[in-house]
Amino acid sequence: AWKGAPEFSTDDGWSFKPRGRMQVDVGSVDGPSGLASANQAHLGTSVEFRRIYLAFDGTMPGGFGYRTEINVANSDVAINDMYLTYKAGRHVTLTLGNQKPNWGLEEMTSDLFTSFQERASYSQAFGFERRIGLNAQYAGKTVVAQLGVFVDDPKSMGGDTNKSWSVDGRLVAMPKVAGGTLHLGGSVHVRTLNDSIPSVTYQARPFVHTTDLRFVKAGIGDATQERGFGLEAAYVKGRFHATAESFWQTVRRSGFKDPTFNGGYAEVGYLLTDDVSTYKRGTYDRIKPKNGFDKGGIGAIQINGRYEWLDLTDAGIVGGRQQTAGISAIWIPIDYVRFIVDYGHIWVKDSPVTANGDASYGVDAMGMRAQFDF
Amino acid sequence: AWKGAPEFSTDDGWSFKPRGRMQVDVGSVDGPSGLASANQAHLGTSVEFRRIYLAFDGTMPGGFGYRTEINVANSDVAINDMYLTYKAGRHVTLTLGNQKPNWGLEEMTSDLFTSFQERASYSQAFGFERRIGLNAQYAGKTVVAQLGVFVDDPKSMGGDTNKSWSVDGRLVAMPKVAGGTLHLGGSVHVRTLNDSIPSVTYQARPFVHTTDLRFVKAGIGDATQERGFGLEAAYVKGRFHATAESFWQTVRRSGFKDPTFNGGYAEVGYLLTDDVSTYKRGTYDRIKPKNGFDKGGIGAIQINGRYEWLDLTDAGIVGGRQQTAGISAIWIPIDYVRFIVDYGHIWVKDSPVTANGDASYGVDAMGMRAQFDF
Amino acid sequence: AWKGAPEFSTDDGWSFKPRGRMQVDVGSVDGPSGLASANQAHLGTSVEFRRIYLAFDGTMPGGFGYRTEINVANSDVAINDMYLTYKAGRHVTLTLGNQKPNWGLEEMTSDLFTSFQERASYSQAFGFERRIGLNAQYAGKTVVAQLGVFVDDPKSMGGDTNKSWSVDGRLVAMPKVAGGTLHLGGSVHVRTLNDSIPSVTYQARPFVHTTDLRFVKAGIGDATQERGFGLEAAYVKGRFHATAESFWQTVRRSGFKDPTFNGGYAEVGYLLTDDVSTYKRGTYDRIKPKNGFDKGGIGAIQINGRYEWLDLTDAGIVGGRQQTAGISAIWIPIDYVRFIVDYGHIWVKDSPVTANGDASYGVDAMGMRAQFDF
Repeated sequence: AWKGAPEFSTDDGWSFKPRGRMQVDVGSVDGPSGLASANQAHLGTSVEFRRIYLAFDGTMPGGFGYRTEINVANSDVAINDMYLTYKAGRHVTLTLGNQKPNWGLEEMTSDLFTSFQERASYSQAFGFERRIGLNAQYAGKTVVAQLGVFVDDPKSMGGDTNKSWSVDGRLVAMPKVAGGTLHLGGSVHVRTLNDSIPSVTYQARPFVHTTDLRFVKAGIGDATQERGFGLEAAYVKGRFHATAESFWQTVRRSGFKDPTFNGGYAEVGYLLTDDVSTYKRGTYDRIKPKNGFDKGGIGAIQINGRYEWLDLTDAGIVGGRQQTAGISAIWIPIDYVRFIVDYGHIWVKDSPVTANGDASYGVDAMGMRAQFDF
Repeated sequence: AWKGAPEFSTDDGWSFKPRGRMQVDVGSVDGPSGLASANQAHLGTSVEFRRIYLAFDGTMPGGFGYRTEINVANSDVAINDMYLTYKAGRHVTLTLGNQKPNWGLEEMTSDLFTSFQERASYSQAFGFERRIGLNAQYAGKTVVAQLGVFVDDPKSMGGDTNKSWSVDGRLVAMPKVAGGTLHLGGSVHVRTLNDSIPSVTYQARPFVHTTDLRFVKAGIGDATQERGFGLEAAYVKGRFHATAESFWQTVRRSGFKDPTFNGGYAEVGYLLTDDVSTYKRGTYDRIKPKNGFDKGGIGAIQINGRYEWLDLTDAGIVGGRQQTAGISAIWIPIDYVRFIVDYGHIWVKDSPVTANGDASYGVDAMGMRAQFDF
Repeated sequence: AWKGAPEFSTDDGWSFKPRGRMQVDVGSVDGPSGLASANQAHLGTSVEFRRIYLAFDGTMPGGFGYRTEINVANSDVAINDMYLTYKAGRHVTLTLGNQKPNWGLEEMTSDLFTSFQERASYSQAFGFERRIGLNAQYAGKTVVAQLGVFVDDPKSMGGDTNKSWSVDGRLVAMPKVAGGTLHLGGSVHVRTLNDSIPSVTYQARPFVHTTDLRFVKAGIGDATQERGFGLEAAYVKGRFHATAESFWQTVRRSGFKDPTFNGGYAEVGYLLTDDVSTYKRGTYDRIKPKNGFDKGGIGAIQINGRYEWLDLTDAGIVGGRQQTAGISAIWIPIDYVRFIVDYGHIWVKDSPVTANGDASYGVDAMGMRAQFDF
């Protein structure tokens, strides 16, 4: 079978498929003129490889499977999905290795299929990443349940002094409602921080990823535990989809008050062409244009609008608050190629990065992405 | 043909096969309570990717072949097997590139098939690694002979000031004896040290790889040459195997006495299931369960016991002595998936790492591994 | 189809092919005896992996294609060809991503097919490299035209302060003349330098790549623009080929005179065996021996002679001048395996690296390469 690249398989359960993706981005950020020149240098227009994944997927007789995926976009190796799976039952899969610890709808959706270049900023801020762990998933027709135990990401675990660990669970119901699919979910994350440096830093870029400047940033020392709680809701029907999520992150500290930070977003999207938005067992999936370039058509075009917020100020910590209103247009000439253009206006408040002494101001950001995968 | 992954080939001599492996380890080390807290921080329980190999193997018409293998487990690139081969005759193969310089039985055996998570500690201590070189191998029915010239590992050779080089030879006889295979071998290694810094460091971790603390460690300055001499013996028959090896490493020094360090081990193993231990031309090979998960069985189960030692104290250098008694259980549900659990007790003597001023003490270590390859 | 490795394809336009190469080099450089010992340490004989490329190539229905190639030879990841292509017409291809910005004949020719281990030294000196950009190519029967806009290489673009960009164009005519192919071309490159550090460094190794010492080196501060202009000529007929190129690089500076540096080479080559030199649409291509090892023959043997120069002294900047006379022998036992041995004598003048106070002296260099690709 072909899925971007050939998938080889045998009747007795062996299969093998190469796998990869490239995302190349242009991003432009226009901040207030009063920023320090060292900060201004990070703005303007930049180009970068956002992601370059190279991987092998496979299955083996007896119910085993695997993925070995690395990300080389930063001219180094970041270990991505890297795991052994075992199908313990018709609906139950165990996964051992580096994987996403059951975050929310947008984070669990592949970065190939998000509605904007970047996910909502709380996703960056609260450290949603892949970690090494053992996870169990039940994926039924109308319910997905996920529960796992995790340590830290592979690079952090490369040393031997990081003893942090977490329990992460997620539950999703996805009933059919009025001819569409309703998605309702929540996730809970309890993480014991046990590294040699007992601190966490929460920060987020403004709308695009090309700049390294963050207008919101909170460093929290004497941290002993992270507790995260997320809510997810979505409705998908034909050309239309709507999503809303919110996440609360509490940091337990020794000798200080425990701050709780919050972020979230609400989004609607619509396909201008005669295509359908795709949802599959707890995440959004690949939109396959009915009339793509391969058939002489123009492919699929989707437009999206979103409001999102991130508040990193609480309990005496002033990390700032960022609200973003964004619009995007996505063009999908064939199933495995995608172009995105998007624009966002960011309202920054109480920022640690001041402009002429002012901690509140507006920022504009625009981006474009070209992407293929196989 | 399928060998974990598909092997593509043509009638006129072309072939190509993707290749990879993942090993994820949990290790736990319990040292004496009197260790300095900076040392204690390296102990306890840790998780790591031990090895992640990604590779392509191939052959070409006219007798040529190749392997391009990298290890990305440490979130970087380590060049592993990386060579061009030429079949110069029915039994003779020339190999040019990065490869193992004809070390002993356990080191030449793939890390996929060792009896414990880690090889005997002298294997780490004496710097057994892959190096760039040109090697010739004669592999007959009852004799394997290997001889090569080598420089250093690819990362060390990345600079241009390392002019070290070595000659490494190994000879193995493998007669059939009493229905089993007897393995008798030896290797000799003479290496001229010619880097800008004329020193070598010999050290070994305690039983598992997850900790970076070494209880035995010898740094030897003014080193001009390394001379290694190894002896190997094994007997493999049906469910049973026994192995014993020892290695002597002498460092020639300018202006100082030349120390000779020694390490070795003796091991027995037995398959509890109706399976056979596998030996092939000078190394152990893949155990293929007769009644694996793919056939509704439980796979193969092997238990192993081992005593090993490493003595890094000689000629005025006190690097310490480490003896380890270990047991392991290996579960192989299908040919290409393997789980290991093992435990070792280490007797440390004359260690540079003291506990409340005491240089001799006991250490306990336990580990688990999950592994697949293709 | 097999092209070193299998190429999988479908009737409706999908294709996929793994791809890779390994080059392992030995190089030896003998400089004047009066060099400082820190410089001498870089000379002598060294071994290195020159290139290790791993890649996937593919095409998709609708005219899209891609390549994802990394170079791991330095025990890290360098992003190489990494792009999405679109066939906009029968002769027109658009390429978006990391690629060569339309340099001259030898630089655009794959490093698999060059006549010496290394390209002419101006190719190193003037920073010919792959950069992220959008390029258009028209490749007709007798004309190739290329024009693109580029930023910088992926590693440099990993930060967000590099705003350099360039326009790079190349035009080649390739008429049939007297039974052979005549190649006449030129390229123009205008690059606005806009990084936080406004300087460029031009330098080149002596003939081989194994040493890190450069006898010619010019650092130019206050640089605002690079302007490059190249001329190319070649004639290929049967066993014979001749090539000549020259390149002028001007650096515009703020507050200083603008230096113009120049380099070039002239080369002839001849196949001793009954084989043909291969040229294809603006570059040299793979020589396929008629009577290779796979057919019981000895393969193809080519000998080459070359004179090349590089002058880094102008407008008050004294980077030195390097002239090299070189000869090489190339042995190609089968299409995808190649061995090179070459020797060069270098005349160094006005070098920043002095020998007993003398800035002009002779250097000898010799090298060997073994290479395969798939």
